[in-house]
Amino acid sequence: MKHSIEGFSKLTKAEKVDWITKNHFTHPEEAKTLLASYWNKNVELQKRHDEFIENTLTNFYLPLGVAPNFIINGKGYTLPLVIEESSVVAAAGNAAKFWSQRGGFTAKVLSTEKVGQIHFFYKGSVASLSAFVSTHTAQWLESVREITGKMESRGGGIQSLTLVDKTVDLPHYFQLHLTFSTVDAMGANFINSCLEHIAKSVERSVTNEPAILQAGGIEIVLCILSNYVPDCLVHAQVSCSVEDLGKHDQMEAIAFAEKMVQAVAIAKVEPYRAVTHNKGIMNGVDAIVIATGNDFRAIEAGVHAFASRSGHYTSLSEATINNGQFTMELTLPLAVGTVGGLTSLHPMVKWSLELLGNPNAEELMKIIAVAGLAQNFAALRSLVTSGIQKGHMKMHLLNILNQFGASEQQKESALYYFKTNTVSVQAVRLFLENYTA
Amino acid sequence: MKHSIEGFSKLTKAEKVDWITKNHFTHPEEAKTLLASYWNKNVELQKRHDEFIENTLTNFYLPLGVAPNFIINGKGYTLPLVIEESSVVAAAGNAAKFWSQRGGFTAKVLSTEKVGQIHFFYKGSVASLSAFVSTHTAQWLESVREITGKMESRGGGIQSLTLVDKTVDLPHYFQLHLTFSTVDAMGANFINSCLEHIAKSVERSVTNEPAILQAGGIEIVLCILSNYVPDCLVHAQVSCSVEDLGKHDQMEAIAFAEKMVQAVAIAKVEPYRAVTHNKGIMNGVDAIVIATGNDFRAIEAGVHAFASRSGHYTSLSEATINNGQFTMELTLPLAVGTVGGLTSLHPMVKWSLELLGNPNAEELMKIIAVAGLAQNFAALRSLVTSGIQKGHMKMHLLNILNQFGASEQQKESALYYFKTNTVSVQAVRLFLENYTA
Repeated sequence: MKHSIEGFSKLTKAEKVDWITKNHFTHPEEAKTLLASYWNKNVELQKRHDEFIENTLTNFYLPLGVAPNFIINGKGYTLPLVIEESSVVAAAGNAAKFWSQRGGFTAKVLSTEKVGQIHFFYKGSVASLSAFVSTHTAQWLESVREITGKMESRGGGIQSLTLVDKTVDLPHYFQLHLTFSTVDAMGANFINSCLEHIAKSVERSVTNEPAILQAGGIEIVLCILSNYVPDCLVHAQVSCSVEDLGKHDQMEAIAFAEKMVQAVAIAKVEPYRAVTHNKGIMNGVDAIVIATGNDFRAIEAGVHAFASRSGHYTSLSEATINNGQFTMELTLPLAVGTVGGLTSLHPMVKWSLELLGNPNAEELMKIIAVAGLAQNFAALRSLVTSGIQKGHMKMHLLNILNQFGASEQQKESALYYFKTNTVSVQAVRLFLENYTA
Repeated sequence: MKHSIEGFSKLTKAEKVDWITKNHFTHPEEAKTLLASYWNKNVELQKRHDEFIENTLTNFYLPLGVAPNFIINGKGYTLPLVIEESSVVAAAGNAAKFWSQRGGFTAKVLSTEKVGQIHFFYKGSVASLSAFVSTHTAQWLESVREITGKMESRGGGIQSLTLVDKTVDLPHYFQLHLTFSTVDAMGANFINSCLEHIAKSVERSVTNEPAILQAGGIEIVLCILSNYVPDCLVHAQVSCSVEDLGKHDQMEAIAFAEKMVQAVAIAKVEPYRAVTHNKGIMNGVDAIVIATGNDFRAIEAGVHAFASRSGHYTSLSEATINNGQFTMELTLPLAVGTVGGLTSLHPMVKWSLELLGNPNAEELMKIIAVAGLAQNFAALRSLVTSGIQKGHMKMHLLNILNQFGASEQQKESALYYFKTNTVSVQAVRLFLENYTA
């Protein structure tokens, strides 16, 4: 078994598969057959998928499920959800159905500002630096017009450029903090290109600026967009009279509403709970983020940092009872795109966007926030009534049966049996051990 | 176009596909053909994938790429990486190669404690509650033995059960805080089952406890594991003499080392930068988390909350120069499993685990942390030398060409042309416009 190799990236796909399987697997031929069994029979389509990243050997399947019956601002939607975790799609469908009979979800985009920064060190006087930046800002923005031109014609571009003094936190550390509108694009490449271009312009300007040069010039360390977007916010909400909530698992409407409020109150004050509470929200968020070709690591990082912005990691959602009205709401920072990136390259991303009616970026922000709120409602509803395991394990039943290698006949009778019995790995094992056809 | 339906989940897959395509697409037949083009030709295998979640219509492909040449604690690895973002796999491979010539990565598991909590309200005296919990703890733990028995035989189980008074944060709010060892399982179902079972035992105990009953009893709101695992930590590191770092993009070793340290120092103090810095780490982390069948939302939530634990969202990694030695290190909370869940159900997960030599959970924690550190090193190296766009856009070139519908011949000559020219969407557009075969 060999794990080191020169020039691996230059091999053909077939050569890569050969080397990998021969050097890492007890049964190389089986490993190779498995990889090939996941290739698409359409060679061109497969090539398209191979070219998304480097050293692609095969496709990793994530299930794409759908949840119909969402009403958002009065309009009907079926959501595409890409996720490996059982019960998330079922929860989305249940929450959608429940709220569709109570006015549906409302959602609103609060802001759409993206951020990028040029980070640098400078040892001279702040006054000189400040004057230098003021004098040259217009020129720097002009210098980047060849990149921003197309974005400006679509209504976006650079919105502001500000010098930020960070020397209290780190000696000699300053930033140029830029804000952007990227319209329907997520905008990472656009922002990074602008920043790197402006950084070069800044360096050129310095060469003619004795005040800055005498202080040793400015030392640019790095330029990059930020995935922290606390001014790119969307708000989603559901609301109905407490009475209209109805009974839940033998719990009266008012008791149910109060438990929901308590559950959120706990997530507000207890980080151990808040993390899992927010993780449930992200089950819905990421499932659409992936289906629509957006970058879930960027969204996750921005959302959880936002959850900690008070200095105390806390719940992203709120639940209240006011004058007999129950309300759940959620505010999320979401920098997403519906053009660029994978949106036009991955056929299932295109398909998912069409399923959603080809939304623009702001509409997609609303849909994603609603998916998060729906998950949050469904998870809390399970938690405060029957407990999370009952529903989850029921949804997980087929996976457990498959794990034990159950036959189709066994699966069928297990599904019948567990309609009225509690699912656990242990209970399924016993059922199969005692199974007689 | 109809977006509402009764009993959707009870339809067959074919009926679901029919309803979805007919009611959401301008060309339903095309939409249906596309879905089917992603089904696996092996009907049984496809059924397996369909059963992971609910309402599955098809498979969403994420590319699985590999990065060889990782040395971790002296042992060679090739990493399976499932990710849609170009340049992540290339960056992993480059960082692996670079450090394999400088002693490789070291990694160490610091702790493996999982957490679950029973959240409840209680209005009586804390002394009575405390006495009640002390008296019954052994009995409650005994009551759950039918669930914990198997886990105990593998060396895990419940490690502790503690009453926590949270009334300072929220009136009448208390917890039973439990810690667990789940050995090689991620353990979510195990922990949740234990908690729900113990909660029932607690409620039964209350009925015989006058002191608690007189205070109105205890009101359990919810029981659930926590994805915040600050005592389930793994540490990864690379280190070499500054001199051995060599030149980077015409930058001398010492200048390069200092820039790397500056870049991390910036991410330490500036949340806008920290979020993106950590996002880069998660590019590597999540790619393996997905490939090995683990839940990336759980990992993301736990990691970012950990990054904010000081009250200030900050860098997860450190970079230092000490006595001429350059060191980069990373500590991450990672609750992952190599048994249970999808690990034995998803054939490509099994394949990925075999590629890694079938690690146990602790070894997988180390591998994942190393993947995160490798991405962090590679991203910072790009940022402080040529900028992020040069390498990223080069890797993204094929996607841009595909976006413009370039022919194979055009792609080939573009790859040649952009070996020596800067890639941008604009530059590729111009190249194609001026292309003559």
